[in-house]
Amino acid sequence: MEPGPLSRPAEPGICVSGSPGAGSAFPASLPSGVGAEPGSRPGTVAAVLPAGGCGERMGVRTPKQFCRVLERPLISYTLQALERVCWIKDIVVAVTAENMEAMRSIIQRYGHKRISLAEAGATRHRSIFNGLKALAEDQPDVVIIHDAVRPFVEEDILLRVVTAAKEHGAAGAIRPLVSTVISPSADGCLEHSLDRAKHRASEMPQAFLFDVIYKAYQQCSDYDFEFGTECLQLALKYSHTKAKLVEGPPDLWKVTYKRDLHAAESVIKEKISQEICVVMNTKDEESAGHLLKEVLKKELNCVNVTSTVLDHTGSDVQKFPTDQCYSFICVNVVSPDFHETQKFLSTLEESGLSLLYPVVVVLVHCCDLTLAPLAPKMESLMWIRSLAEDMKKRNILLSGLLLNYSEDEQKLQESFQQGASIIAALVKDRSPALAGQLLLA
Amino acid sequence: MEPGPLSRPAEPGICVSGSPGAGSAFPASLPSGVGAEPGSRPGTVAAVLPAGGCGERMGVRTPKQFCRVLERPLISYTLQALERVCWIKDIVVAVTAENMEAMRSIIQRYGHKRISLAEAGATRHRSIFNGLKALAEDQPDVVIIHDAVRPFVEEDILLRVVTAAKEHGAAGAIRPLVSTVISPSADGCLEHSLDRAKHRASEMPQAFLFDVIYKAYQQCSDYDFEFGTECLQLALKYSHTKAKLVEGPPDLWKVTYKRDLHAAESVIKEKISQEICVVMNTKDEESAGHLLKEVLKKELNCVNVTSTVLDHTGSDVQKFPTDQCYSFICVNVVSPDFHETQKFLSTLEESGLSLLYPVVVVLVHCCDLTLAPLAPKMESLMWIRSLAEDMKKRNILLSGLLLNYSEDEQKLQESFQQGASIIAALVKDRSPALAGQLLLA
Repeated sequence: MEPGPLSRPAEPGICVSGSPGAGSAFPASLPSGVGAEPGSRPGTVAAVLPAGGCGERMGVRTPKQFCRVLERPLISYTLQALERVCWIKDIVVAVTAENMEAMRSIIQRYGHKRISLAEAGATRHRSIFNGLKALAEDQPDVVIIHDAVRPFVEEDILLRVVTAAKEHGAAGAIRPLVSTVISPSADGCLEHSLDRAKHRASEMPQAFLFDVIYKAYQQCSDYDFEFGTECLQLALKYSHTKAKLVEGPPDLWKVTYKRDLHAAESVIKEKISQEICVVMNTKDEESAGHLLKEVLKKELNCVNVTSTVLDHTGSDVQKFPTDQCYSFICVNVVSPDFHETQKFLSTLEESGLSLLYPVVVVLVHCCDLTLAPLAPKMESLMWIRSLAEDMKKRNILLSGLLLNYSEDEQKLQESFQQGASIIAALVKDRSPALAGQLLLA
Repeated sequence: MEPGPLSRPAEPGICVSGSPGAGSAFPASLPSGVGAEPGSRPGTVAAVLPAGGCGERMGVRTPKQFCRVLERPLISYTLQALERVCWIKDIVVAVTAENMEAMRSIIQRYGHKRISLAEAGATRHRSIFNGLKALAEDQPDVVIIHDAVRPFVEEDILLRVVTAAKEHGAAGAIRPLVSTVISPSADGCLEHSLDRAKHRASEMPQAFLFDVIYKAYQQCSDYDFEFGTECLQLALKYSHTKAKLVEGPPDLWKVTYKRDLHAAESVIKEKISQEICVVMNTKDEESAGHLLKEVLKKELNCVNVTSTVLDHTGSDVQKFPTDQCYSFICVNVVSPDFHETQKFLSTLEESGLSLLYPVVVVLVHCCDLTLAPLAPKMESLMWIRSLAEDMKKRNILLSGLLLNYSEDEQKLQESFQQGASIIAALVKDRSPALAGQLLLA
């Protein structure tokens, strides 16, 4: 995929959607909000993302934050999660000198906004300190510290740690322990095991009043910089600030091992496969498109299936749910001269949707194969192959599905069921190798 | 898939392979082995698997040990991992009364051996105690305690904890902490954070001299049964036995959240896709089969690609690497009367290989599409569809690949490259919905 000159589409975040309602960052009832407080200037929030790690636990040579998930580096997902939150004004990423250029090109390619770069230090704490120094001149009220390898952070938990930091000076997300923690003796035997109910795993994000954490880092010893792991502990030790602990959701988990990359890919695939849009050229409720839509709804009962009617210009992409939908099933929109299909695809391309995720497009062609022989029908749709080749370069995965629209009610049902399964597999797997294929149901 | 009347194929474990060499369970050099000791009867080892949990953290209704991964319940993978180790003589699974029947049918369907069932108690510790009671009459020297939801346990770590338990009375696998562990105060603030270097996560498997752990459980208080989590701690408290801690591999992780199921599926898919066998009907080094094999080797450089020549009876499955290979690419073996293909498939079916994992078979047909028109060629291969329908019921995923064997060297290369990518996707994704499709490269 070549980075196009396109800008990114509207994100489903709260800032760009412009709806100040349910999705608003600062509900009116926020007890001691991050926003304006009486007698103080409006609060500003920045974030620091240490990304200088080498990912030794992953067992691969690429640092884990740069490992690719659906062809995009993991850190880009984390940046996307943070920049969707409009009240985070500045995001400082600390990367090693050798990865600086790579990081710049990631920012440029995926259109990330509000990012500045700092140089990573030799340890995580030194990287964070460098990030804080970069913010020191125009210092924010609150700074969030997050991990580059926790891509699934939601606005809710960010807001909760920031709010708690405003009140307590420091705050961090915690999770229940999955394993019991034990303390070994010098000879490698069990000394004692910790009461699981009385301990928690400290996760990210954390948030601090800028002064609290900056002062703490200014006083850090070399030992802290070298062997410390816990920012909350530094705030306690040097700024005498007891952090508020905030229960976070399970998605905060840190991509640490190779299996976590697998898990992250599956989670992302599942997320972007939650919406399917059936595109058709008729409003007729009896049309193949509508029937297929109903079968899809039944088959994939946790997926939201919507539909849209393509007008004759093919350019009505505004009507598509393009902000969260990355799967389009075009039913009987294809025609031998594939004029409309091409128009549809260019509109999709121009929307910039495929910049962040691979977009699946299945061109469904219904016909009664008892009336028309299969072979010439398939041959007549072979243009999909070359078009798909072209589309793949733009991260749009195009394939064809020939659906046997039989007069026999039972055969028709079977065909639709099989078609729905095939569509579900294409949407779920998003396998580039299968783009351009003409499938049969 | 219907459970066939077939027995399971030889497992890649050390017991059935019969090679007493490198894979042997008890190397001669074992310091204080699990086997015969001077003056004592040969050591026996049993395992207890508490499987009564309800999987509340998973966020799904099915208890996580019964969640399906590639259509097979997770616990079956764990049982498979344990029964591959021939020196584990008895495996007691503790399941709730309501899941007893389901568990029996899992054991029957997947041909698990050496399993007995005990009734699970209300808590994990009560379940383990029930499992131990079931072993009390004919008590083993050492008992392994493992989790039903840690399917990737290898013989090496089992041997290490058992050996250590023989010496120390108790032993357990540990892992470095991924997150810092903190202790919260009553008001939900940070009390202190633990030194990560001085603590470890306690994982499974653990092993105990039977007496040590049985006595410990006999003395347990209701509080221990209710709130305790750590068997090692019970051995310490009641049998005054300090467990040896053994560093385990990362694969020991516990399937806890939904993302872990995703990760487990990916790990299993990756594992069973490490071997691809190219089946052909000629030894000719210039044949399409050999060329494709070379391209596959280059494309999938971490996958072992072997080949075998099918003799005219098609029944030479003994030659196939059927003990670890679940992917077969048959090149030009298909013929219009598909006689040989059918023979090959029945042999595969009879091998029982698909009882545990879905087996992928791709029938590759090479022909020069500049000489022969595509459509009739495709039509002539449509029998693959109905055959695939049939095979799917037996957990064999059959699909066809028509490969353009052009005279033009560059086109040929492109075609082989694309073919290799398609094969890789079919092997990796193992999507049942795509079985029966005829793909084109």
